[in-house]
Amino acid sequence: MSGNRPQMTLTPCDRHLALFTDLYELTMLQAFYEEGMEAQSVFSLFVRRLPPQRNFLLACGLDSLLGQLEALRFEPEDLDCLASLGPFSRRFIERLADLRFTGDVYAVPEGTPVFANEPILEVVAPLPEAQLIETLVMNQINLQTVLASKAVRLAMAANGRPVLDFGARRMHGLDAAIKGARAFHIAGVAGTSDVLAGRLYGLPVRGTMAHSYIQAHESEAAAFEAFARLYPETVLLVDTYDTLDGVREVIRLADRLGDDFRVRAVRLDSGDLGALSREARALLDAAGLGRVEIFASGGLDERAIDALLAGGAPIDGFGVGTSMGVSSDVPDLDIAYKLAEYDGKGRLKLSSGKPILPGRKQVFRTVRDGFLAGDVIGRFEEDLPGEPLLVKVMAHGRRLDSHERDLERLRDHAAACIATLPESLRGLEPAEPPYPVSVSDALAEHQRAVRDAIARRS
Amino acid sequence: MSGNRPQMTLTPCDRHLALFTDLYELTMLQAFYEEGMEAQSVFSLFVRRLPPQRNFLLACGLDSLLGQLEALRFEPEDLDCLASLGPFSRRFIERLADLRFTGDVYAVPEGTPVFANEPILEVVAPLPEAQLIETLVMNQINLQTVLASKAVRLAMAANGRPVLDFGARRMHGLDAAIKGARAFHIAGVAGTSDVLAGRLYGLPVRGTMAHSYIQAHESEAAAFEAFARLYPETVLLVDTYDTLDGVREVIRLADRLGDDFRVRAVRLDSGDLGALSREARALLDAAGLGRVEIFASGGLDERAIDALLAGGAPIDGFGVGTSMGVSSDVPDLDIAYKLAEYDGKGRLKLSSGKPILPGRKQVFRTVRDGFLAGDVIGRFEEDLPGEPLLVKVMAHGRRLDSHERDLERLRDHAAACIATLPESLRGLEPAEPPYPVSVSDALAEHQRAVRDAIARRS
Repeated sequence: MSGNRPQMTLTPCDRHLALFTDLYELTMLQAFYEEGMEAQSVFSLFVRRLPPQRNFLLACGLDSLLGQLEALRFEPEDLDCLASLGPFSRRFIERLADLRFTGDVYAVPEGTPVFANEPILEVVAPLPEAQLIETLVMNQINLQTVLASKAVRLAMAANGRPVLDFGARRMHGLDAAIKGARAFHIAGVAGTSDVLAGRLYGLPVRGTMAHSYIQAHESEAAAFEAFARLYPETVLLVDTYDTLDGVREVIRLADRLGDDFRVRAVRLDSGDLGALSREARALLDAAGLGRVEIFASGGLDERAIDALLAGGAPIDGFGVGTSMGVSSDVPDLDIAYKLAEYDGKGRLKLSSGKPILPGRKQVFRTVRDGFLAGDVIGRFEEDLPGEPLLVKVMAHGRRLDSHERDLERLRDHAAACIATLPESLRGLEPAEPPYPVSVSDALAEHQRAVRDAIARRS
Repeated sequence: MSGNRPQMTLTPCDRHLALFTDLYELTMLQAFYEEGMEAQSVFSLFVRRLPPQRNFLLACGLDSLLGQLEALRFEPEDLDCLASLGPFSRRFIERLADLRFTGDVYAVPEGTPVFANEPILEVVAPLPEAQLIETLVMNQINLQTVLASKAVRLAMAANGRPVLDFGARRMHGLDAAIKGARAFHIAGVAGTSDVLAGRLYGLPVRGTMAHSYIQAHESEAAAFEAFARLYPETVLLVDTYDTLDGVREVIRLADRLGDDFRVRAVRLDSGDLGALSREARALLDAAGLGRVEIFASGGLDERAIDALLAGGAPIDGFGVGTSMGVSSDVPDLDIAYKLAEYDGKGRLKLSSGKPILPGRKQVFRTVRDGFLAGDVIGRFEEDLPGEPLLVKVMAHGRRLDSHERDLERLRDHAAACIATLPESLRGLEPAEPPYPVSVSDALAEHQRAVRDAIARRS
C-alpha cells in the first residue's frame, strides 16, 4: 500500500471542527469583538519541561493541523448550537458565520527534534482567530508529538530491526490511532496494522494472524496449513497453546509442504521472549529453516526490546502495541499555547513556574562535527549563528509550498536529524548533561523589559 | 446546554469505519470464508488484571460502539483500497460489499463497576463478523472505560464538589476528547469545556477565561472589568501576574461595580493552591465577598484534590485537564477480546499468563446490606444467586430497547452503583482485601474440559 496517496482529502474526524474548542475561547472571542481587540497577536506553542524519560521530542502533527485551519468554519448547525448555549449575542453569531483563519503560521518541520521552551509553532493572527484555535492546535500537535517522541525510542532500541505498530486496539480512540500511525511512520516505525491509517496516509500495512484463528480450528496444525496455503509468505503465530510445540508444528508443516513452504516468520507473543526466541531459532535452524525469521510481540516497550537485543535474542522484528500507542510512560506533555505578543507589544505572565518568552521567536541550531551542539532561542528578527528551525508554513490562512507534506521526505528528515543527535541523547537513559538550550541576550532583555512594563502598570 | 439532545446522528469520526481494523482481521476473514468457517462464535471482552491504582473499572463506551456496529459497511472506495492491498481475491472483495454485522451483543450497562476477568461484553456472531470488529470494539470500549474509570476517582476525591473537564487540549486526539467528555459525565464529572462534545451529547458546557485574555489587556483590572460587564456571573482567573494581587483586583472591581458585581468565583491556576485558597478566602471574606467561590485548577489529579480537601483548603470546585484526560497514571488497560467458543465448542488458549474463560458467560453480583459482597463469573445459562450483569443489548445487528442510552439515567446508574461499593473500594489506595470475584464450579469444570480436549488433540 506504500505509495498510494490518500484519496480522501479530510481525515475522518474533521466535521464540525470549529466547535472543537473550549467554551472560554468563544466567550473571550465575543469579548474581544465587543472591545475592538482585533489587532495582530502572536501565540507560541511549546513544551515547558521535558519529562525525564525523554531526551528530546519529535515535533509532529503540523500537516493535519494546517489542513484543519484551512477548512475551519462554523456551519449553520454549529451556529444554531452556539445560539442555544446562552451567552452569545446574535451579532456575535453572525460574525462567526464569516470567520475564517487568516493568519500566518511559523513552525518547526515535522520530524525535527525539539527541546523544552522551544516554539514548535507560532501563530501570527488577529487575536480572536489565534485564540479560537487554541484547543485544536494543542490537541493535534500534542497528540502527534507525544506519539512520535515515543515511537522514535522504540525504533532506536530496535537498532535497525523493523518495529510494527499494532496499537490501534488500545490507543485512545480513532483519531489517535489513525494520526498516530502517521506519526510512527515519520519516527521510523516500519508499518502499521491499521488499514484505515494505511489508506489515508499511504503507509505500509502489515499483519500476521490472531490467536482466535488458531483457536477456531480443531488443531494448530490445521490452522497453520490453511493459512500458509492461502498466504504462502505469512507469519505464523506459535504461542496459542505452547510456543515451542508451535514452532515444531511449523517445522512439520515445512516437511509436509516441501517447496511450497514459504512462511516468512514465526511470531512469539508471550512468555520469556529471550529464552523462547533462542530455542525457537535452534529448532528452526536444526530443521534447515534458517531463513524463517522470528518476530516478537506482547507487551513490549523500548526497554524490553533493548534488553532482549542486549541479551543476544535472535529476534528479527518487533510488533509493539500499547506502550507505543498510548506512550504509556509519558502519555502527556506539559505543552502550552501562550500569548507572547499583542498589538506589537510583548506579553507574558508571571504565574509561578510557568514563564513565557515574549514576542516572535526563532530557534537557532548549531551543528558541529556532524552533531548538534546547542540551540539558542532568540527573537525572530535576530541573525544568530546556526540553522533557523521555524519556517513560514502558512500565510493568510493558506499552506505554503515551504511546508513539507511528503511523508517519505519527512521520515527521511527525521532520520537525518536523529543521526545528528549526540550519542547520549539517542540512549534510553536521561542524557547527562542534557542538551544545551539557551536564550539569546536580546530575547532575555526583551523578557526583562516586558516584565518591567507589567510591574510598572500594576 | 444540558438537555439539548444531539442532532448529529453520527459522531465526527464515523466515516470509513469498516477499514478501522487490523489487516490481520481481513486476512483471517478471507481465510474463514475460503475454509467455510462461518459458524457462530463467542468473543469475550474483558480486562485481565486491574492495575494497582484502580480498585474497579467503570464500564463505558457501549453506546457509540453499538451505533458503529449498526452502521458498519464497506463503501465502494473502501473496497477499491482493499483490492489494491494485494492479498485479497475479487470474490472476497465482493462478499465484503454485502457484509453487515448481524450478531448479538450482551453487555454490562455503561456506568457499572467491573473487575478483572469479568466480561464487559460478549459478541455472539458468525465467526468472520465477530473477528472483523475486534479492533473497533477494543479501541472504543478501552478508551471510554479507561477514561470513566479515572474520572470516577476524581469525582470521589472532590467529595461532592463539582469537577469540570478541561482536558480537550491534551487528550489524545479528537475522538478521545469528544467521547471522553461523555465518559466523564457518566462517571460524575459536572461539565466539560469542549463545545463539540457538549453539542453531540447534550452535556453541560462550562468555561472561565484564559491567561491570554488578561495578558492582551493593558492591565488585569481592565480585563476583569470588561469581562465581568459582558458576563456578570463569570469566573475570573487571578494568577496571571500574582494570585493574591489578582484577588485584591477582584475586590476593587466589586467596590467599583457595587450592586452590578455578580462575579461567581475566582480561579487559582498555579502555585500552592492550599495556601493561596486560604489567603484568597480570607481576603474575599474580609471584603464582604463571602459568596464569591474559589475554583482551583492547574495540574490537579485525584491525590492532589484529596490532599487539598484533607488539609481544609476552602475550594468549591475543580477544573481538571491532563491527568483525567489521558488517565495519566493508567493510560491503558490489559484489555482483551478473545474467542471463547466456536461452533458450539468452548475455546481457550494456553499462552502463559493469559487465561481465557471459555463459552458464553454471565456475571452474578451479590449485594448484602446495601453493599456489593462479591461476584461470581458463571456460565451464561447458570442460575446463580445475585444480579446478572450482562444484558442483551443488540440482536441481529440492531440495538434493543433494553440498551440504556439516556445519559442522565446512565449517570444516575453509575452513582447508584458506586454508592454500593464497599468503602475500601471507593478510596484512592489499593483496597485490601480486593473485591472478591470467583469462577463458578460449572465454568471451572467447563474450562478444564476444554483444556483437556485441546491436550488430547495435540
